[in-house]
Amino acid sequence: MKLTKVLSMVAIASLGMSSVSMAEEITLSEAQMKDANQVYFDRCAGCHGMLRKGALGPTLEAKEMKTRGTEFLKTIIHEGTPGGMPDWGKSGELTEAQTELMAKYIQVEAQTPPEKSIADMKKSHKVLIPVKDRPKKPEAGAENWKDYFSVILRDVGQIAIIDGKTKEIKSVVPSGFATHITRTGASGRYMYVIGRDGKASMIDMWMKEPKNVAEIQVCNDARAIDTSKHKDYLDKYAVVGCYWPPSIVTLEADTLDPLKIVSTGSYTYDTNEYTREARVAAIIASHDKPEWIINIKETGQVWLYDYSNVKNPKVTMVEAERFLHDGGWDLSKRYFMTAANARDMISVIDTKEGKLVANIPSQGNKPHPGRGANVDHPTYGPLWASGHIGSNDIIFIGTDPKKHPKNAWKVVKKIQLPGEGGGNLFVKGHPNSPYILADRPVNPDRKLQTSFYAIDKNKLEVVKTIEIPEKYLPTVKVGDKTIESRGPVHFEFNADGTEVWTSIWGNKEVATAILVYDAKTLELKSVIEDPRLKTPTGKFNVTNTMKDVY
Amino acid sequence: MKLTKVLSMVAIASLGMSSVSMAEEITLSEAQMKDANQVYFDRCAGCHGMLRKGALGPTLEAKEMKTRGTEFLKTIIHEGTPGGMPDWGKSGELTEAQTELMAKYIQVEAQTPPEKSIADMKKSHKVLIPVKDRPKKPEAGAENWKDYFSVILRDVGQIAIIDGKTKEIKSVVPSGFATHITRTGASGRYMYVIGRDGKASMIDMWMKEPKNVAEIQVCNDARAIDTSKHKDYLDKYAVVGCYWPPSIVTLEADTLDPLKIVSTGSYTYDTNEYTREARVAAIIASHDKPEWIINIKETGQVWLYDYSNVKNPKVTMVEAERFLHDGGWDLSKRYFMTAANARDMISVIDTKEGKLVANIPSQGNKPHPGRGANVDHPTYGPLWASGHIGSNDIIFIGTDPKKHPKNAWKVVKKIQLPGEGGGNLFVKGHPNSPYILADRPVNPDRKLQTSFYAIDKNKLEVVKTIEIPEKYLPTVKVGDKTIESRGPVHFEFNADGTEVWTSIWGNKEVATAILVYDAKTLELKSVIEDPRLKTPTGKFNVTNTMKDVY
Repeated sequence: MKLTKVLSMVAIASLGMSSVSMAEEITLSEAQMKDANQVYFDRCAGCHGMLRKGALGPTLEAKEMKTRGTEFLKTIIHEGTPGGMPDWGKSGELTEAQTELMAKYIQVEAQTPPEKSIADMKKSHKVLIPVKDRPKKPEAGAENWKDYFSVILRDVGQIAIIDGKTKEIKSVVPSGFATHITRTGASGRYMYVIGRDGKASMIDMWMKEPKNVAEIQVCNDARAIDTSKHKDYLDKYAVVGCYWPPSIVTLEADTLDPLKIVSTGSYTYDTNEYTREARVAAIIASHDKPEWIINIKETGQVWLYDYSNVKNPKVTMVEAERFLHDGGWDLSKRYFMTAANARDMISVIDTKEGKLVANIPSQGNKPHPGRGANVDHPTYGPLWASGHIGSNDIIFIGTDPKKHPKNAWKVVKKIQLPGEGGGNLFVKGHPNSPYILADRPVNPDRKLQTSFYAIDKNKLEVVKTIEIPEKYLPTVKVGDKTIESRGPVHFEFNADGTEVWTSIWGNKEVATAILVYDAKTLELKSVIEDPRLKTPTGKFNVTNTMKDVY
Repeated sequence: MKLTKVLSMVAIASLGMSSVSMAEEITLSEAQMKDANQVYFDRCAGCHGMLRKGALGPTLEAKEMKTRGTEFLKTIIHEGTPGGMPDWGKSGELTEAQTELMAKYIQVEAQTPPEKSIADMKKSHKVLIPVKDRPKKPEAGAENWKDYFSVILRDVGQIAIIDGKTKEIKSVVPSGFATHITRTGASGRYMYVIGRDGKASMIDMWMKEPKNVAEIQVCNDARAIDTSKHKDYLDKYAVVGCYWPPSIVTLEADTLDPLKIVSTGSYTYDTNEYTREARVAAIIASHDKPEWIINIKETGQVWLYDYSNVKNPKVTMVEAERFLHDGGWDLSKRYFMTAANARDMISVIDTKEGKLVANIPSQGNKPHPGRGANVDHPTYGPLWASGHIGSNDIIFIGTDPKKHPKNAWKVVKKIQLPGEGGGNLFVKGHPNSPYILADRPVNPDRKLQTSFYAIDKNKLEVVKTIEIPEKYLPTVKVGDKTIESRGPVHFEFNADGTEVWTSIWGNKEVATAILVYDAKTLELKSVIEDPRLKTPTGKFNVTNTMKDVY
């Protein structure tokens, strides 16, 4: 950039090219580029892509951005848009200087981020506690390990392991940046963690004080991790789905030693255009086959990845819909229900037959199921539920084509959360709970945002709105801004479904609580508070995660 | 380029940067770039890759080429190297000006060639004769169609269809540039043709005068075409393997309408590095499964591509060896025998089990089997043969692990062609022929080059050297250079194996002959001469191609 600028100044001076506007020449120092790369990765790449070719958000290619100019772009980055762009400046997430930096940065050509070979990964691979030095059985004090919760402390890059029975924090261990999810192996012993920065780690639940036993930087950007759950491969492999480089990486489940990498660069299923940045969104593991079900976001394909011959995988590339995001099992664990959020569709994959069953209009705006929630309804039969980010709709889709063919692959019921504005991120159920719970952390209205909603599984109606007491919603001053806690986010039941946990999604400057409700009465039963609990978000109970109960 | 030059001149003039050497600044005009792109594609990309990252030849990345300088590079391009680089200038293939242009061109950054979507392909798709207007049965005069030969007229971009019984040229039809191979469908009716420029076409053998009935530009660069040969998919699909964009494209077999594209960009099987330019080399079609066996050259993987659900293919990615080139079936059509020519290996894929059986050192330099040649040997059992480009070795590998386990996946016999210098391109056999024939068109010695060699299938010895009579080896003057015909290249038997054909690989300025030998006596039996027969190379008999007889 610098050289170009010098040359163009010289050119103008020498040749009298007065028509070239000097104001349009963007130059960033190496340090600025580094900062901007980091902010872009942390805040922007998720929706706009590392190559800036767009995904859920629009393309940010330099050529087009230049036509907008710095002032316009600063305003957008500060204020956000009704289409879903967050108000990064206004909310205090980005400083004034960072907002300006990013407005300039996106007018400069995007660089292709580096590739990563298995040799590159291995440089970061650490077996912190060798297999032979780990406990042979659960240690004294770890008797309740099957009811432990891993709680993501998102903005501080940590995982808290909390005993679901005693509510004791067993340990707080480091993780990658802004962990997206955690998953157990088939036996539940290890909790696998994937940071948004592509760092995978695994925590041993059998230790009195659960610790990381292995870690590895698998990719530069990631969202998904899971394990082999077929009976012949129990606890044998882990798998990481990468955003960048777009790929699927198989690892040894007990050491995280990387074994195999497969590129997901592919052609969009509908327009058949090559997409280098075809990112791996949700992964789930089949219990019946040695297969992972893998969403290839941008190209709208679901890959059924047979890991039985680990170095020679077999991949069935199923055309579904764009852009695939999150999803989970139906009640029978035969059908994978997944959101194609850019098209407001739920795609259904029959993992037994290895094919698409249906693309179902979700009847709302931007479905975001997480893994969804399952209901065994007395008249409709088995149903799978999802909420939406962009609208208040909670939908229930019939998932039993044999016994309830009339309801299968249809939205049999759509209900609304009270008030305006959408903002639901997660729904959650448990076979022993009479309710599906729904949160609303990205609703702009503070009252709606700081409540959650109980849907009766028989009536399929919102029967109760639970407001979070103000005392659990601390505010924090960052510079001259006062930032409020966001309302409850994400739910997880304990193993027997008698209690349900939700997190207060705060700011990393201040600790917030995890609230534990009675699953039947919906009364607040316990409050887990600790100075270490900063920005708690997702929570994963060992038993429910190993059995895919939701 | 021009602008850079202007700016750097200005910079030097204005800033007094006298240390920048003007001689090193390479500038090519738009017209020169276009010419150089074409020459690069025609002559260089095959070995060095479109992205110039190297394959069989070394990398030609601009940064490194600049350190060599124009004079050095001109010399290499003109003279060739003992490592296999042809003497493009000396041989008259490139003019003095072209040699200099290419020496400069490779010092300029390689541009990524364009992508190609199915919509792009469709723009070039032509059904020249609709299915309903084609003959319902072989027309009068086409009774011998199952013994027709398609003969590639390489440098004139045409295919001659010649009656194997009467030796009559039935028609000469246009094809893509420098056609690499032709293949039939399972019923043999259509001959499918793939040009090196990625243009696919299909010729109807049932017509009195066989014509192209459909054509389409599938890729920018291609080497492979085949069809669905499983009984449930006879004549249903064709498949093109692309060099660029690196991909597998499935087409309707009767119209060449493109149906599905799958990217082959993948990770090298051994070093696990991402390779965008992972090109499709040989493809063969299974007769027992709805599968194509596809060589992914640079990454050393063999993909078993299940086309039974055409829009949702299932791909088994088998690790084999680098760089995969050509190959064919063993006698049982269960094992795919393929050359990894950069590693002097023969990889064996068991298509029944879907796995690698062995990587066998070929005991020679740069194995180049074509599809190889099969022998049912009285003591060794079934054998598969390959020659080498870089050495005189013809090898025989045992392919029957059940009845001849001691010989299986070993070179049980290695024999030498007489004289020095390698240069074999093809071997060919037929169950009714007592001989395997071997050519030697790239041997530097004119006498060795203009002979071919008969190997007795029982003795496994070269029993006869057949010299091509001088009168069938015309020379041609191009400018002030006299260019000699290259010796016989490629063999094909007629359907019953009583005759074997070979081509005199001439120059496009002069017609050359196809020589037909008695398969038993090896006496010259017929000479097919015609002013239209310019640069005949590969020949494919309908019956032998549909049944994979070689």
